[in-house]
Amino acid sequence: MITIRDVAAAAGVSVGTVSKVLNNMYVKPNNRKKVETAIQDLGYQVNTYAQGLRAQQTYTVAVIVPDLVNPFFALLVNYVEQVLAAVGYRLLVCNSHCNADRELAYINMAKQNKVDGLISISYSNMDEYLEADIPFVSIDRHFRYPICCVSSDNDMGGRLAAQKFIDTGCRNVIYIRNGSRLLGETLKRGKSFMEVCERAGVNASGMDFGEETTLTRQQIRKIYDFLEHSVRDGRLIYDGIFTSSDVHAVAVERKLRDMNIRIPEDVQIIGYDGLRVLNTGDYAVSSIAQPVKDMAVACVDALVKMIEKKPVEDGVILPVRFVDGGTTR
Amino acid sequence: MITIRDVAAAAGVSVGTVSKVLNNMYVKPNNRKKVETAIQDLGYQVNTYAQGLRAQQTYTVAVIVPDLVNPFFALLVNYVEQVLAAVGYRLLVCNSHCNADRELAYINMAKQNKVDGLISISYSNMDEYLEADIPFVSIDRHFRYPICCVSSDNDMGGRLAAQKFIDTGCRNVIYIRNGSRLLGETLKRGKSFMEVCERAGVNASGMDFGEETTLTRQQIRKIYDFLEHSVRDGRLIYDGIFTSSDVHAVAVERKLRDMNIRIPEDVQIIGYDGLRVLNTGDYAVSSIAQPVKDMAVACVDALVKMIEKKPVEDGVILPVRFVDGGTTR
Repeated sequence: MITIRDVAAAAGVSVGTVSKVLNNMYVKPNNRKKVETAIQDLGYQVNTYAQGLRAQQTYTVAVIVPDLVNPFFALLVNYVEQVLAAVGYRLLVCNSHCNADRELAYINMAKQNKVDGLISISYSNMDEYLEADIPFVSIDRHFRYPICCVSSDNDMGGRLAAQKFIDTGCRNVIYIRNGSRLLGETLKRGKSFMEVCERAGVNASGMDFGEETTLTRQQIRKIYDFLEHSVRDGRLIYDGIFTSSDVHAVAVERKLRDMNIRIPEDVQIIGYDGLRVLNTGDYAVSSIAQPVKDMAVACVDALVKMIEKKPVEDGVILPVRFVDGGTTR
Repeated sequence: MITIRDVAAAAGVSVGTVSKVLNNMYVKPNNRKKVETAIQDLGYQVNTYAQGLRAQQTYTVAVIVPDLVNPFFALLVNYVEQVLAAVGYRLLVCNSHCNADRELAYINMAKQNKVDGLISISYSNMDEYLEADIPFVSIDRHFRYPICCVSSDNDMGGRLAAQKFIDTGCRNVIYIRNGSRLLGETLKRGKSFMEVCERAGVNASGMDFGEETTLTRQQIRKIYDFLEHSVRDGRLIYDGIFTSSDVHAVAVERKLRDMNIRIPEDVQIIGYDGLRVLNTGDYAVSSIAQPVKDMAVACVDALVKMIEKKPVEDGVILPVRFVDGGTTR
């Protein structure tokens, strides 16, 4: 009887490549043709084998993000899909809207081998549902278990923003954030920012607009309100505003413009993410740019290693850089 | 023996809801609890039934888009996922990068019942691979078969852009596009734009930058080059530029600003899509806004009907509107 190994040998490709062709995964057109020719030449019976192979692995990975409205999440998913496809995996996308129930459904799929693994930006309390043997890569967030965490260098990001404000003579700065207060890398953005400012004698405060990760209309209104009430004698009391994301920074810039406050002359703004207008234009604001493509590569690299039962590092921290988007001097 | 119907009756929910719980689909937390309680109370054996149910349907749908870098595609996928999740389906995302092989792999999955259906923005020549009985919803694109096509009112979009230029006294306008020339709704953008302009005595031309759907760096450079060579006696020869997407319009605006051409005083720009800066700020440019959320709802509605063997309309065309993003007078 002809086996999958015979097909691989005849086609001059690996057994994995034949398996991918049988399962309609992406394979280089050239290799696909070789495999199809070998299958025809040898008269290989596809179906039974294909099903046998499928039972072991689904070649499907799920990514959990809060939404695809924030362009940072959309870019991350874009690159994760691209890198996964290149190694023969398909991608299920779960927009959790920070709903823990939706996230749990996908964790259960992993437990039942309906997906091979998970990549997650999650802010839910799901420590107790994770198990050590699920291939799981976390972005930014730490868990009770030693789970592989990929992030940008948030500590460095906070320091770069602080240094920019110090170097340009700011005297009274503020960090504006919202999002989870669960233990994670992103908390370091504000922490190191305020520490560096204070050490340099610059007055620094922090404003926390709540635990919701997605910036809702209500939260934007709260930020607007806060800015309106931060005026004394016709002038904004802050001369430097650092925000936890570029989406926040764009909201701040829009409101200050409406209030006829000059940017960057009267107040400077630095966001976090390094997003460009429609992802192709200029930087939306001055920002700390995360290496989103490298983060996607690191996530997929770690996850595939886990699926293949190979050892992985506990954490991957990737460098950030300051980018000038016209809202700083 | 306890059946799934007994569980549904005891929990006071439909058989479909029990099936979703067994398959880890999203179910309202309240209903999930009722089903789990009924399963325990009755001592229902989950696994065998769950597998039996799964064989019929995967509750998984694939969406094919060129990429998630263009925010229009990312928003569309965001809403498609949201609407699908509400009716108990998961979403596989395929970024085709206009590679027909990748699209075909997902069409084959549908043929083999590995996904229940497809929603596709495709510009590949895949007419011959589609079959009448695959649940398939196309966005913008027509096929040889009568396949359900969801789009915005591209004819209206072209007319709105033309009317704006006519009303503000433009004399020499141009339509700049790239993307597939295969039969589809988007071709109407330029066609009706030019017809309306010409009928009003406004000189209108069209510039086609090739078949690639994604605006690559090379294509942006071509647009820059074209604009640089469209200057006579220190002035741009066009006073109105309409583009096939907002991403194009942002590229045009950036280049003209670098050339010290005043927008909207010397030249007006209108894009297509209606995207906001980082999806939350101001409109990136003046534009024809597509109702992206309504389009997602229409796609899912039609697809689920097809999966359930119910009749659907051949085409859904949704209204567009002009939005002022500061690049028009």
